[in-house]
Amino acid sequence: MRDLANQILLWRVYVSDAQYNRNIFFDTSPQAVRLYLLYNHWFMQTLVYAFIIVNLALALFEDPAVVPLPIWATSTIEIICLSAFSVRMVHYAKVIPKDKFWKDPKNICIIVVVTLSFIDLTIYGALKSTGYFAIRWSRVLRPLLLVNVTEGRQLRRAFRSIRNALPQISYVFLLFMFSVLVFSLVALKLFGKRGLLTIDGSPYFTDYLDIVFDLYVLVTTANSPDVMMPAYNYSVFFTIFFILYIIINTYTFMSFFLAVVYSNYKKHLKEEVRQLVKARRFKMCRAFSLLHEARGEGGEPVVTQTKWNHLVKLVKPNINIAHRELLWSVLDDQNKGHIGKFAFVQLADLLSIQVITVKSQPHPIQICFPSMYNSPVSRFIRYVVHQRMFVYVYDLIILVNAVFIGLDEENPVVSNAEWGFLALYMLEIILKLYATEPRAFFARHHFWNWFDTIIIVSALFGTIINSALKHCKCYTSRQILDIIFILRVLRLIRLVDSIKRSDSYSQMLNKSGLCVVYYIFAMVGMELFKGKVQFFEPNSTSPDQEYCGNPLLKGTTFAKLNYCKNNFNNVVSSFIVLLELTVVNQCGFTAVTHISARIFFVLFHIVVVIIIINIFVAFILEAFLVEYTIDKSDLQTSLEKKIEELEDGVDTGLVDAMESNDNELGPSEAGKQKPSLMFKIASRRSRTVDGLLQRMFETDIRPEDFVEEEEPENINFSNPVFDSV
Amino acid sequence: MRDLANQILLWRVYVSDAQYNRNIFFDTSPQAVRLYLLYNHWFMQTLVYAFIIVNLALALFEDPAVVPLPIWATSTIEIICLSAFSVRMVHYAKVIPKDKFWKDPKNICIIVVVTLSFIDLTIYGALKSTGYFAIRWSRVLRPLLLVNVTEGRQLRRAFRSIRNALPQISYVFLLFMFSVLVFSLVALKLFGKRGLLTIDGSPYFTDYLDIVFDLYVLVTTANSPDVMMPAYNYSVFFTIFFILYIIINTYTFMSFFLAVVYSNYKKHLKEEVRQLVKARRFKMCRAFSLLHEARGEGGEPVVTQTKWNHLVKLVKPNINIAHRELLWSVLDDQNKGHIGKFAFVQLADLLSIQVITVKSQPHPIQICFPSMYNSPVSRFIRYVVHQRMFVYVYDLIILVNAVFIGLDEENPVVSNAEWGFLALYMLEIILKLYATEPRAFFARHHFWNWFDTIIIVSALFGTIINSALKHCKCYTSRQILDIIFILRVLRLIRLVDSIKRSDSYSQMLNKSGLCVVYYIFAMVGMELFKGKVQFFEPNSTSPDQEYCGNPLLKGTTFAKLNYCKNNFNNVVSSFIVLLELTVVNQCGFTAVTHISARIFFVLFHIVVVIIIINIFVAFILEAFLVEYTIDKSDLQTSLEKKIEELEDGVDTGLVDAMESNDNELGPSEAGKQKPSLMFKIASRRSRTVDGLLQRMFETDIRPEDFVEEEEPENINFSNPVFDSV
Repeated sequence: MRDLANQILLWRVYVSDAQYNRNIFFDTSPQAVRLYLLYNHWFMQTLVYAFIIVNLALALFEDPAVVPLPIWATSTIEIICLSAFSVRMVHYAKVIPKDKFWKDPKNICIIVVVTLSFIDLTIYGALKSTGYFAIRWSRVLRPLLLVNVTEGRQLRRAFRSIRNALPQISYVFLLFMFSVLVFSLVALKLFGKRGLLTIDGSPYFTDYLDIVFDLYVLVTTANSPDVMMPAYNYSVFFTIFFILYIIINTYTFMSFFLAVVYSNYKKHLKEEVRQLVKARRFKMCRAFSLLHEARGEGGEPVVTQTKWNHLVKLVKPNINIAHRELLWSVLDDQNKGHIGKFAFVQLADLLSIQVITVKSQPHPIQICFPSMYNSPVSRFIRYVVHQRMFVYVYDLIILVNAVFIGLDEENPVVSNAEWGFLALYMLEIILKLYATEPRAFFARHHFWNWFDTIIIVSALFGTIINSALKHCKCYTSRQILDIIFILRVLRLIRLVDSIKRSDSYSQMLNKSGLCVVYYIFAMVGMELFKGKVQFFEPNSTSPDQEYCGNPLLKGTTFAKLNYCKNNFNNVVSSFIVLLELTVVNQCGFTAVTHISARIFFVLFHIVVVIIIINIFVAFILEAFLVEYTIDKSDLQTSLEKKIEELEDGVDTGLVDAMESNDNELGPSEAGKQKPSLMFKIASRRSRTVDGLLQRMFETDIRPEDFVEEEEPENINFSNPVFDSV
Repeated sequence: MRDLANQILLWRVYVSDAQYNRNIFFDTSPQAVRLYLLYNHWFMQTLVYAFIIVNLALALFEDPAVVPLPIWATSTIEIICLSAFSVRMVHYAKVIPKDKFWKDPKNICIIVVVTLSFIDLTIYGALKSTGYFAIRWSRVLRPLLLVNVTEGRQLRRAFRSIRNALPQISYVFLLFMFSVLVFSLVALKLFGKRGLLTIDGSPYFTDYLDIVFDLYVLVTTANSPDVMMPAYNYSVFFTIFFILYIIINTYTFMSFFLAVVYSNYKKHLKEEVRQLVKARRFKMCRAFSLLHEARGEGGEPVVTQTKWNHLVKLVKPNINIAHRELLWSVLDDQNKGHIGKFAFVQLADLLSIQVITVKSQPHPIQICFPSMYNSPVSRFIRYVVHQRMFVYVYDLIILVNAVFIGLDEENPVVSNAEWGFLALYMLEIILKLYATEPRAFFARHHFWNWFDTIIIVSALFGTIINSALKHCKCYTSRQILDIIFILRVLRLIRLVDSIKRSDSYSQMLNKSGLCVVYYIFAMVGMELFKGKVQFFEPNSTSPDQEYCGNPLLKGTTFAKLNYCKNNFNNVVSSFIVLLELTVVNQCGFTAVTHISARIFFVLFHIVVVIIIINIFVAFILEAFLVEYTIDKSDLQTSLEKKIEELEDGVDTGLVDAMESNDNELGPSEAGKQKPSLMFKIASRRSRTVDGLLQRMFETDIRPEDFVEEEEPENINFSNPVFDSV
């Protein structure tokens, strides 16, 4: 009996691993399985994320700080975080076999980072307490914990694609650098001896390293006409040099970088997804072999419906019976009462398709006032609301509203019109609620209904409060006005109905991947440049204000253009400067430190613009192509077909079976006209990144790809890359 | 007899049409065929190109001119050009059937453009002679002639892809503009009332249209930190607005544009290439049906070798016999003496693969001094020269040379080292000539040998002349030094051996496509802005100098940064300004004219950056992916296999047959050791754009795609797009 419970536990772990695409090959002893379940518990995972966020957020409070805290406070918090990571590590070590643990570079990386952080913390504390100068260098390592401690598969995948693309990128990069160096040499010889002057009056193109840097910046297009003007002013023929340079380096090489990144990205991602699907199927096969009963015609192992029902409830406790029946009917297509291995393996994929069960219920008003609700006028209203025209009319109203927002709000007509628009929007919501059953209207997947209602109701309250404050001549806070205004603008977004299309895109944007790199550069930048540039409030009277507190900046464009707030004095402004650098390389900082600090800027451009932005573009490209070429997975299609059949009443037997089983949702009422139970697939698009990736390469992955024979070692991923960083 | 001659003529036209991918469906009457041959004659085509270049180059001489010419002169030249185009048109009309002529929008476009140009010329002449103000508006239409008159298939194809992508691009563009407009609205409301000031002291974000323009420019990244600084200085929270804006509009939408262009480009190009191949096969089938003799086993029509030989000579008069035999042996794989339709159709593809016939001949020195040439020392030298190490040593020498170029040339050591390097390079060439037969060394396809020799010899002469001038203390011209220096730098390029790889890429860059758009914008820009900004020589004393001759520019950054030479005062500087605009939008011009001139800059950005640059990137992407995935066409592979067989002496019968036939190349001498005749495929990569395109989509085009049944109408292209412009 105890053995059976253990087996079911193991089974549950296999299926949920397959469902959530985990690829940890844990110990199968009952104790380890229990620990593994705890390890994957949502609470433990959330806790780890919380500690990581706290650890990363420490940069806000450490010197140079946004909000300064004493060293003992930040150190204590950091020690707590590091201890938590250590505990998590020990937990993990207990779950998987010893030899596997030490083979995984991910674990070694975490241990090294945690140890180094402890050492750094000790040294820093000791030095600081004795009054010496010290650098917290281990802060640079923190993002590695984010990458390695969590189950940040997406993130690790992104870094793996970067690593895989590196050899080819570096080949193109060498060619590119060679080209820049040769062009610089030509520039030195062509312009150096002519005694030309830049607009600052300094000699133009006389130092080789300066030229290399200037021409590199030209690739980022930051100093576009300026760098060329002295030569152009001297002779029009010299522009040929710059035109060639721009065509070759700025356009052709940058396109090559994109092409290299894109082709590598595609190739390696495909291989990884294939491995992922393989691992998933392997786990499902394991799960199947745990509980099949030999009962098929050909004697092949099968699983019966009762057992299946029982197990699905274990894996997904909140699944409703109708949904479960639907899934079964998809798998057991021929109504045999049992399914083979092939059908069973698809369970994990099926569970990842979000199906919404809609029960068509009568409107509350219909129950209370049936005659009124069914009167011709009421019917007409409901008809109108469901028309496409109704949506168009409100789109028009939103457009008119947009124009009114743009007008001067001091004008009484405009401010009164606001009330009119609010009333119209309220009317829209009420009409829709009248025409649609409220519970269906506010169903979980109707994002836009929730959005509308919340926006409009808050705008209504905000406007009322605001006009009340105005009437009593109290102080009208700028903040309230701003909030109301933002609410008003948010309404406009509704117009972009197709924004739904980019649902999947917004998910893709692996922001955390960028943040890791930004974080590292911010840390380094703060150590290099902190305090070099200072910002003074506009009304300050300090004489340092005009050169940002640094005499080296006297008279530079940096100070003239009032860029003083672009500094590395705390982590927030560092991030903002790095974002500016992403858009346009802006290197005023090299004036205040040693010239070698340029390396920092060039490195940042290479890493972020050449590699990361290109990966981002590559993902959008690929996803876009997939969106337009591949439609739905086979499984999703067969599910949809089943749902359609149910709606057409083809398979009424199934509906009846579902309804009689449906003790959780209560008895049906209007079962004569149409099936009262309806299913909907939440989105035609896969909602998760993994789903999207799988779809990208689906055509290449055969469902027959069973791998039961293979050893788990072969399909375990050689995980992260950070050990080599 | 006369009939047969006509038939052979028709046959020749069909095959050469297929070979050069022409898709004109001409009249098949003997007279029309003869006219058609004349129409396609290289002299006629060159003449047309010459007239087009002259016509486009007129912009250099017309007001505003680089080199002013009187109106009567430019008008006369233009009239001559237009007449030439009309004659070409009439010629074309005689070649193809009447109804076809009027159906083709390309022809109508040409007629309209020529007519309009004549009308404009008349009006302009009349107005100018009576002293009125007049605009030469028809100059904008000139590039259309380049697109339509010539057989600029590549160019028309690029424009067709643009047109096909337009619906989808405009959908994304609408979303993008909506986003920009909403963001501008938010900016107006958030920042407008706070009384912030820009660095110029003007109010910040108070006018809606100004904001829209500023935020649009932010998408081009031109005003990146500047536009944000006042808000950032006020409060750090406002940066959230800009960060959101940059992520959404600058990165996501721009990637969407690329994705849309790329996916459409791929889709439509595929279809076009399919059509092209279909048309080619259709022509080859026609040609086959003209001359086959029913003689096959199954009674199917075949062509005999003698007839084939005769005809190949007609189509490609300068083909040597060995090459012809090789082709025949590829087609007639089983040595039947005749080929069927399937094999015949491949002739056009085979002819487009460049095969180089190499005859291994003894070295001239070997003939004169056989004992010396075969001595051990001589053998050793030849052995060394052919080693890979020899190349590496010279690569190292080039690198050292690069360092010396960078050093100060006033230093006597450096200037003397130059002689050393020259000697080393000369030695290399002499050694190579000693080791390789001179005629083989200077063969037509050995580009790098030619390149080296020319560069080194000219550098030698230049250096000698220069030092002679120096010695006699005459004036050392800067120009000679520059030329020598350029020659020196060009040597470095040899280091990039892999630059060969980008051979096909450089072809792709459809520069003329870009030039057409640049030309149109330059014409419009000149009408709008000519004379508004003036450039003064640096030593001029005019007080207008500091504001570029336009009081409106007083104190603007445009004047401060000395951008005065960025003007539209003639066609050359217009092109340079437009190039600068491509790299970074720089809109100082809006200060000197009406604010609506901004439309010009925004339009330019949309057309060039969003559409054309993206198509360029898409082509590189696709070509790169193809380069790495598809290797060679089947036909090329079978040709290579045949060549290998010949080298291995497998098919010695064929070699003998070739050599005995080879009366053009003289008798062979050293036929015992190895076959003295060797073939090489000129490049593993397809050299022509069409070839590359065909390879791109080869997997989708089945060779069985015969279309003899189809009507030519269906495969005639509905040609250009310009009628709708």
